[in-house]
Amino acid sequence: MNSKYAETLKVILECLEECNTCFDACLKEENVKMMAECIRLDRECADVCAFAAQAITRNSPFTNQILELCAEVCDRCAEECAKHEEDHCERCAESCRKCAKACRQAVA
Amino acid sequence: MNSKYAETLKVILECLEECNTCFDACLKEENVKMMAECIRLDRECADVCAFAAQAITRNSPFTNQILELCAEVCDRCAEECAKHEEDHCERCAESCRKCAKACRQAVA
Amino acid sequence: MNSKYAETLKVILECLEECNTCFDACLKEENVKMMAECIRLDRECADVCAFAAQAITRNSPFTNQILELCAEVCDRCAEECAKHEEDHCERCAESCRKCAKACRQAVA
Amino acid sequence: MNSKYAETLKVILECLEECNTCFDACLKEENVKMMAECIRLDRECADVCAFAAQAITRNSPFTNQILELCAEVCDRCAEECAKHEEDHCERCAESCRKCAKACRQAVA
Repeated sequence: MNSKYAETLKVILECLEECNTCFDACLKEENVKMMAECIRLDRECADVCAFAAQAITRNSPFTNQILELCAEVCDRCAEECAKHEEDHCERCAESCRKCAKACRQAVA
Repeated sequence: MNSKYAETLKVILECLEECNTCFDACLKEENVKMMAECIRLDRECADVCAFAAQAITRNSPFTNQILELCAEVCDRCAEECAKHEEDHCERCAESCRKCAKACRQAVA
Repeated sequence: MNSKYAETLKVILECLEECNTCFDACLKEENVKMMAECIRLDRECADVCAFAAQAITRNSPFTNQILELCAEVCDRCAEECAKHEEDHCERCAESCRKCAKACRQAVA
Repeated sequence: MNSKYAETLKVILECLEECNTCFDACLKEENVKMMAECIRLDRECADVCAFAAQAITRNSPFTNQILELCAEVCDRCAEECAKHEEDHCERCAESCRKCAKACRQAVA
């Protein structure tokens, strides 16, 4: 892989983990209904992070476009998670914001 | 791809579609909490179906093992969906049962 | 899933199949070196098609962005496959062109 | 995610990176033909590692079965890479062996 993406990859993998942890935790909450959009976006974000991690490591010619998409999904997931006070949502929101920033820096 | 899997592939792709349709519909239900395990298993099943479709079409040396895994996930998703009366759950349960059967026939 | 994407999904799944079939066939060619870029792009294209099929069926809020990415990858894969005379490359090129067009029509 | 899988996840993500790095490097080798089976198995292994990483982090009920599949694919990829003297193949073989072992320990 291109070493210029090493730090980006690390942040993406942390975000993948936080999004899936939040997905799992939201499904176990008492008030699942309030978490419905969070569950949806956690999956979206985990999936695009996995897709981006594969792209970076296989030296995809489309890495930059995929990182831009990843940043956009991260923004939306962060925005939704930030509405909730649960620890898993707060950690996920923070991780998504960090990931969006890292993706955009890598592309710039 | 190996033409012996052509019919299996078709059934897997239908199952992928029904599982994701059910995932989306469950998140929009009034009583999301009752659907939490269904949402979880819909994602599991859609993801393993996508993985199996890729394996079949790229002529993976591990196609049979992946189809066995796919059948097991389909069984569990069908069992959960069958507990609910919503149309999307009934259609998903039926599609998962058909897919589990097709995967096992392909491997046999 | 949103029925407006039904035809797009069908074309994407055909493209996924042709790209992976071409990937497998290229790896079995006498002159693999000549096919190296084709092998790389077949994987890129199959993977983004699988990603797009999941997005469409789970009613992703990012479907349009993912279809635009898919169209771009399809264009590049079609361009590379069109350089080769093998049947699997010609079929793949045709399928990629059709898919790029369908993705762009769905987004428009 | 279940913290019992934390170390396994780390090893799987390293393996994903090495497999995709090897895939990219093999496609750039002078003698691509000799690398054809390595290219095929690198993709198989990277894809099952990505699938396993998603399963672990979303607390999948099928994590153990997926780790068993992952170990089997890693074994085969390690065996193929070990036939070649290139640095990327040696590193990949070592990473696959370590990953197979970690997956089996997690399941045991």
